[in-house]
Amino acid sequence: MAYNGIISLISDTETRPTQAMRRAMAGAEVGDEQKGEDPTVNQLQERVADLLGKEAALWFPGGTMCNFVAIRVHTRPADAILADGMAHIVRAESAGAAFSSGVLIEPIASERGIFGPAQLDEALARIATAPPPYGPPPRLLCVEQTHNFGGGAVWRSNELAELSAHARARGLALHMDGARLMNAVVATGTSARSFAATVDSVWMDFTKGLGAPIGAVLAGSRSFITEARRQKHIFAGAMRQAGIAAAGCLHALDHHIERLAEDHEHARRLAAGLQEIPGVRVRTAVPETNMVFFDPSALGLSSATFLAGLAAHGVRMGEVRGEIRAVTHLDITRADIDTTLAAIRTVASTPGAPEHAPADHRPY
Amino acid sequence: MAYNGIISLISDTETRPTQAMRRAMAGAEVGDEQKGEDPTVNQLQERVADLLGKEAALWFPGGTMCNFVAIRVHTRPADAILADGMAHIVRAESAGAAFSSGVLIEPIASERGIFGPAQLDEALARIATAPPPYGPPPRLLCVEQTHNFGGGAVWRSNELAELSAHARARGLALHMDGARLMNAVVATGTSARSFAATVDSVWMDFTKGLGAPIGAVLAGSRSFITEARRQKHIFAGAMRQAGIAAAGCLHALDHHIERLAEDHEHARRLAAGLQEIPGVRVRTAVPETNMVFFDPSALGLSSATFLAGLAAHGVRMGEVRGEIRAVTHLDITRADIDTTLAAIRTVASTPGAPEHAPADHRPY
Amino acid sequence: MAYNGIISLISDTETRPTQAMRRAMAGAEVGDEQKGEDPTVNQLQERVADLLGKEAALWFPGGTMCNFVAIRVHTRPADAILADGMAHIVRAESAGAAFSSGVLIEPIASERGIFGPAQLDEALARIATAPPPYGPPPRLLCVEQTHNFGGGAVWRSNELAELSAHARARGLALHMDGARLMNAVVATGTSARSFAATVDSVWMDFTKGLGAPIGAVLAGSRSFITEARRQKHIFAGAMRQAGIAAAGCLHALDHHIERLAEDHEHARRLAAGLQEIPGVRVRTAVPETNMVFFDPSALGLSSATFLAGLAAHGVRMGEVRGEIRAVTHLDITRADIDTTLAAIRTVASTPGAPEHAPADHRPY
Amino acid sequence: MAYNGIISLISDTETRPTQAMRRAMAGAEVGDEQKGEDPTVNQLQERVADLLGKEAALWFPGGTMCNFVAIRVHTRPADAILADGMAHIVRAESAGAAFSSGVLIEPIASERGIFGPAQLDEALARIATAPPPYGPPPRLLCVEQTHNFGGGAVWRSNELAELSAHARARGLALHMDGARLMNAVVATGTSARSFAATVDSVWMDFTKGLGAPIGAVLAGSRSFITEARRQKHIFAGAMRQAGIAAAGCLHALDHHIERLAEDHEHARRLAAGLQEIPGVRVRTAVPETNMVFFDPSALGLSSATFLAGLAAHGVRMGEVRGEIRAVTHLDITRADIDTTLAAIRTVASTPGAPEHAPADHRPY
Repeated sequence: MAYNGIISLISDTETRPTQAMRRAMAGAEVGDEQKGEDPTVNQLQERVADLLGKEAALWFPGGTMCNFVAIRVHTRPADAILADGMAHIVRAESAGAAFSSGVLIEPIASERGIFGPAQLDEALARIATAPPPYGPPPRLLCVEQTHNFGGGAVWRSNELAELSAHARARGLALHMDGARLMNAVVATGTSARSFAATVDSVWMDFTKGLGAPIGAVLAGSRSFITEARRQKHIFAGAMRQAGIAAAGCLHALDHHIERLAEDHEHARRLAAGLQEIPGVRVRTAVPETNMVFFDPSALGLSSATFLAGLAAHGVRMGEVRGEIRAVTHLDITRADIDTTLAAIRTVASTPGAPEHAPADHRPY
Repeated sequence: MAYNGIISLISDTETRPTQAMRRAMAGAEVGDEQKGEDPTVNQLQERVADLLGKEAALWFPGGTMCNFVAIRVHTRPADAILADGMAHIVRAESAGAAFSSGVLIEPIASERGIFGPAQLDEALARIATAPPPYGPPPRLLCVEQTHNFGGGAVWRSNELAELSAHARARGLALHMDGARLMNAVVATGTSARSFAATVDSVWMDFTKGLGAPIGAVLAGSRSFITEARRQKHIFAGAMRQAGIAAAGCLHALDHHIERLAEDHEHARRLAAGLQEIPGVRVRTAVPETNMVFFDPSALGLSSATFLAGLAAHGVRMGEVRGEIRAVTHLDITRADIDTTLAAIRTVASTPGAPEHAPADHRPY
Repeated sequence: MAYNGIISLISDTETRPTQAMRRAMAGAEVGDEQKGEDPTVNQLQERVADLLGKEAALWFPGGTMCNFVAIRVHTRPADAILADGMAHIVRAESAGAAFSSGVLIEPIASERGIFGPAQLDEALARIATAPPPYGPPPRLLCVEQTHNFGGGAVWRSNELAELSAHARARGLALHMDGARLMNAVVATGTSARSFAATVDSVWMDFTKGLGAPIGAVLAGSRSFITEARRQKHIFAGAMRQAGIAAAGCLHALDHHIERLAEDHEHARRLAAGLQEIPGVRVRTAVPETNMVFFDPSALGLSSATFLAGLAAHGVRMGEVRGEIRAVTHLDITRADIDTTLAAIRTVASTPGAPEHAPADHRPY
Repeated sequence: MAYNGIISLISDTETRPTQAMRRAMAGAEVGDEQKGEDPTVNQLQERVADLLGKEAALWFPGGTMCNFVAIRVHTRPADAILADGMAHIVRAESAGAAFSSGVLIEPIASERGIFGPAQLDEALARIATAPPPYGPPPRLLCVEQTHNFGGGAVWRSNELAELSAHARARGLALHMDGARLMNAVVATGTSARSFAATVDSVWMDFTKGLGAPIGAVLAGSRSFITEARRQKHIFAGAMRQAGIAAAGCLHALDHHIERLAEDHEHARRLAAGLQEIPGVRVRTAVPETNMVFFDPSALGLSSATFLAGLAAHGVRMGEVRGEIRAVTHLDITRADIDTTLAAIRTVASTPGAPEHAPADHRPY
């Protein structure tokens, strides 16, 4: 539902807690998370460990810290890690892995964030140009589920299994950035546990489609999580009565997973509508999950002009490397999609640019 | 008030949000904090900047990250910073400053965390044993208000002003770890703005005596905060709808500051009572703020035995380097203090140790 | 000339000091380099600053440290730097830039290490997917002259000038890894000063074709070198009576530059000879400088087998990602090239593999 | 012997290679050290491993890098290490351990750099104020033999053995900065092997009293050295034909060890002479090794004025925290000591300061 009269398709990070979620948070039993004494956080950690089929799990203030800490635990400074070249870890995390882990990130070539053993081998061959101690030893392979800049693309569990076996045979650990893992679960019917089975560490985010305001949980083996706990302190990510926030996440686990299907339906509806507008080129005709990327340049409008035009109609989207990205989520209804399409049609048919460009809203 | 029948004097980080604070949090207007669009976070930042008399302020998930980020902004890798040798930054932050900023911490000698120009000069002289490029250049002086392991000791504003002038004349920037700054304000009647006037950066915590579950806010010049914002991303501390938590902090600003005086009164009452128990040595007869350190060893009980005995009476305290630390806070009433004293008297007069030692609760 | 009966074309780092160079080193006047008091080091620094047209220069124990220190001075942790994806800085320096500077390296696509504004813009666009504070700010562009894994490819001064103007307009500083800069000078007739004119920092190596055993010198503006001097201490690269080694470098400046033309002639002779051997594919028919890359796989021999066969004839080469690399240098005569070609012809015509594979010799 | 008419007692790092050493260097057989193929370096490594009773040893361009690399191998980022508060590692290595290893250095209190289990326990207790994950885990204890700023003080082997057993029982590894280890050997008659027996890693320097221009060698277990080799690449410390320099070190092992006794005799002679000059206070009446610290302030001269006066007589010394330091070495004869004492007597009896202060010479 539009919020303050604005339909924001900038990102599913825009979701606002529902009244029911707010009530759950207000009533949470809490303790000192830093000492492991917050009962609600502890309950969430157990739920997530079980959901992902891992021995243990650990609460974090956000998903990026899950990535940073996981990389720290899996590597030593001056190792190499591998990830798709458009992974969030590479593009939108402030060089944090290089900063805090001192690792080189070797980008893997891929079409939409999904790659196979052959592409991994190419990247490993580049690293092997000069084996240690001349070049860095490769230690960790990261995959992103679903892949954000890949258009919400989904790793299939068989693809993951094949890649994982291949990577492990080459001595690599595997980490999954599961920022939108539950979108993949809902889109495919594959369980989260299945997706997580072939990676060593995985986290899921609660602030995207699941609609909670704060929280991400990292899961792995007991020894991995023990070390991650120390690293969380080193990253200053330990909190106090975090149960207030964790209660929102528990509520999301109970109430907001299945409904991701609606977001996916809305994305497909948006993509279908866009394809009927001359001059708009949609990247993927039938989006896999909750993201629609499209190129409005054949309308004769720059991205900035197009976005400004939309904003004048109360619709916010973002721009990623020349394409427009629209993300559906908890606060977006089917009617909002139709309103959005109408706004786009108007912008598309209006010659000239609006007077004022909107503020720059970044879609990460 | 005892919580679940336990009087926890482990730390003022134990405070749990009141019902009124929970209501304020549940009703918060929120947005994406990472994009600077959370109105409640923005309001809190403005309130704190104003309270501390600084140009700008920035929300953080916790106080340790405020320290880490401030150190990063003030220094370059391989610089030296100075802090009291028992500062939280040195003792209880997982070597984070060395890890994330690559700086050497030169400890300053002091009795209770408070020091003057002479002690600073001694530390600077040690650093100057080998000036750059042989040794590291000193860049930053950190002070802690109130000083935790110093017994909740308060820096007077004239002490700070004198130290600051001295430090600045030697090219140092100043940073204040204001984890319990408001305790100093209430204890002395000096305004937060006055305390902050002679330092370049300062943060205040909302999860201690102020009783909020999550949140700390760092303040400084506009350019300092601009750079701190980038660093917050690098530390993975940017959040989403953090307004839920920030609303608790705003509530604390409105309702929980003056009442810190009660915590101080309770601490004095506890200290006075302890002094009447033979075999108990209180570090400071009249505590300045909300902490009481005492040594029970003349009772013939080890710290662990003493704490276990207390725990059997439903009273939790912590141990710091052989002393017992008791911290008063929002959830502790005057009656709780009397119950606590009674429990201590019983333990003091009971020969032998209780059957089970309590779990290790660390008082940071 | 073959050394101990071995013709080693593994790398021009294999060069051994001549008798005349040894005499120069033995007679060097020396002092404490760490204090700036080694007269021979100081003289070398002045010579190199003048040769490269920079204000100042600084002695280093090796070229990799020049790269690391230059990157440190040009960047802050969590910045992005750009370099060709096969640059030595990316492939053969142990992830050192990530380790010691905490920077992300964005690889630039290129054929042979040489690229233009268009390829730079593509890499900048990838970084700009998420601008700061989401992604890292790009700060520095690195070029390698000549480009090692690009086959000893030469940047022309007009290519550099165009790229530099383009990069500077986008806020980037420029650094040149001049490991084989003098090969480019001799191959093109362009002065070192011309090549260096459009970059902010540049170093040259004395341990490759120039034939000195130890030493590299980094040059730049006075303020750059002042900061580099501090960084050299942080990297533990300050030395004592380094004049012994610097005297070899001065000798090389006086006696070993023009003779690089012979190495280039030998490389061309080797390439020409290789092209006449059926089953051998030479990467570049007329090598630009002193490197020959070729693919022996059509001989029906693996690289390892081929190298082992050569080794049995007293000829050493290395392997880089499936290709064989041969590098000519001071210790290789025209006769050695002919002997080498004869050995290759023999190996090419001999069915089957030799009994023992040689030790793994890495060509960096 | 005075060099260029100057008697430099600034530091034993001032030693210049003798003619015999220069001849040895000029004739060295060399190879590529980075590939492990320099026969002279390899020979030196074997000699040092044997001398120190360790499984393996590794060549470095200088001693500070030995310290940095050893700390890296023994620790993980955000660990704590312990060292005397005036250790070279703390005072004169540019915060390098914090920079490159991200460790906190906990200073141990001591009189002259030598400490025992009790002082270690005090430092460990400070670290244990907040055990992991709140504070950093202590991993490594560093000792310095002889202790530079402690006045060339010598650790006795029984002191080391007792400390080592105590430290190991507390889970610490031990590293010895053996910059002047051979001075301790000659001063006590204890073998280097004995001193090294109770530490895990140890290095010795060749550029101080041993008189070589370049080189230090780190020793330890085979696995330690294997990892140190990788770290040497990460620190850019791998070299090429380093055998030229290593030959000087081998020469020093054969010819310059016993003669350190002369340096010690000269230091005692200097100290004895100084004590007869009214107004000069000598720190240690009978220096243990080759350093003399004294305080000339009762002469009514500032350190700077005193040093300038000496310089006018062709004698150079340095200043360390208000004291004058004089270090004897290979280039200083008994006659030089007498000339020095005469110069001091003249300066002491001359009212007023000389016209020009000498350049600042730092004695590290």
